[in-house]
Amino acid sequence: MSVHLVGAGPGAADLLTVRATRLLARADVVVHDRLVGAEVLALLTPHARRIDVGKGPGDSITQPRINELLRELDAYYEVVVRLKGGDPFVFGRGGEEALALAAWGVDVEVVPGISSAFAAPLLAGIPVTHRGVSRGVCVVTATTEVGTALDFTALACAEITLVILMGVAQRARIVDQLVRGGLDPTTPVAVVHAASTVAQCVVRASLGQLARLDVAAPAVIVVGAVAALELGLSAVLAELTASS
Amino acid sequence: MSVHLVGAGPGAADLLTVRATRLLARADVVVHDRLVGAEVLALLTPHARRIDVGKGPGDSITQPRINELLRELDAYYEVVVRLKGGDPFVFGRGGEEALALAAWGVDVEVVPGISSAFAAPLLAGIPVTHRGVSRGVCVVTATTEVGTALDFTALACAEITLVILMGVAQRARIVDQLVRGGLDPTTPVAVVHAASTVAQCVVRASLGQLARLDVAAPAVIVVGAVAALELGLSAVLAELTASS
Repeated sequence: MSVHLVGAGPGAADLLTVRATRLLARADVVVHDRLVGAEVLALLTPHARRIDVGKGPGDSITQPRINELLRELDAYYEVVVRLKGGDPFVFGRGGEEALALAAWGVDVEVVPGISSAFAAPLLAGIPVTHRGVSRGVCVVTATTEVGTALDFTALACAEITLVILMGVAQRARIVDQLVRGGLDPTTPVAVVHAASTVAQCVVRASLGQLARLDVAAPAVIVVGAVAALELGLSAVLAELTASS
Repeated sequence: MSVHLVGAGPGAADLLTVRATRLLARADVVVHDRLVGAEVLALLTPHARRIDVGKGPGDSITQPRINELLRELDAYYEVVVRLKGGDPFVFGRGGEEALALAAWGVDVEVVPGISSAFAAPLLAGIPVTHRGVSRGVCVVTATTEVGTALDFTALACAEITLVILMGVAQRARIVDQLVRGGLDPTTPVAVVHAASTVAQCVVRASLGQLARLDVAAPAVIVVGAVAALELGLSAVLAELTASS
């Protein structure tokens, strides 16, 4: 028996890995959070028990309780899947769960998923790196721990694309710090909401305009010259329409 | 007719997305580079024509020639797949290909893949972000364009995990610049070679020891406190052994 920490990808069911799909087909119980798409949950077999551990911000059960729950389920079920939106080791707190389970002697397998940090820009037609434009990509969340906000001043770098998860509510502060750090207010930005689903929506603007944009959370914010690009979109949109 | 730029993931065939697998099953021709794993290429149908456009460093055909080739193939075949190791928009030069094809009026669809930048650390048991240890992750390559080497001094940040692709040959310079930028020489590092394949090999050390390590290219270098973690490894290794 073991617990499988599985990345569910950005939302569309066919952006799961083959390994994740096979595990879901065998799962006796699936513990998921609110970032896992409905399309992915629709893949579960009728016999699989589902446990939703996070309906919304402020509404989720505590991390230590989730760890305990996984331990209890492991003792009871054959195949326990802990399904997380995106990738379990990229802001998924999967590291904490793996650490707690390992300390209890529970066998853990981690299955990577397509992270929204890369997929949301891609599905908006934005390559996070691009020859002559961006030499790398830095992925952060606006707030990683209660009470400690990340200082964006040091992250202002025109040569490296910045991808910000969970940053919508704090975008005024982010813009302020990035400009203070040296980024030009005309730097392109793109805000990608509900990437890969039929509700996908992309808003493009300049860094200086970001604070005043009307955007819904959760969304992925891309800052950098690449955010002005729109590549391969026609086919992607056609596919989204066809699958809806 | 359209060209599909498809991410092949880190190497293991079951780490492809379901969408990528379906496209490969329909492909008339697949243009791939040297980072695409043999296990993935084994999925192609017997009728699919295979074109290898990059056997090794210095041995590959030029990017403009690859763009031209894709345009020619698109005019001739129904389903053209351009298969790239990892994710097409993360150091895959997929952006350049999409841009060139779009300028020629060729329809392009981009399918994300699991990037080695995140999967190599994960499969080595390393969460690139971890509460209280790493607040973000910055992904770069040591050299992005001929003649221009990235300066790592500005990337030295104890709070953000640094993932370096294609950095093995330049690791002495990287260490020098990171230490000059303020990183402690005792900062943990991990070098992950051939992630997700049976040849996977992980070497762990400190930043100060990195230059003297015996490691084979290509590999993914992880720099930061998280590089000391080894989570969920037993099951992953068991799975690797079982599938070999």
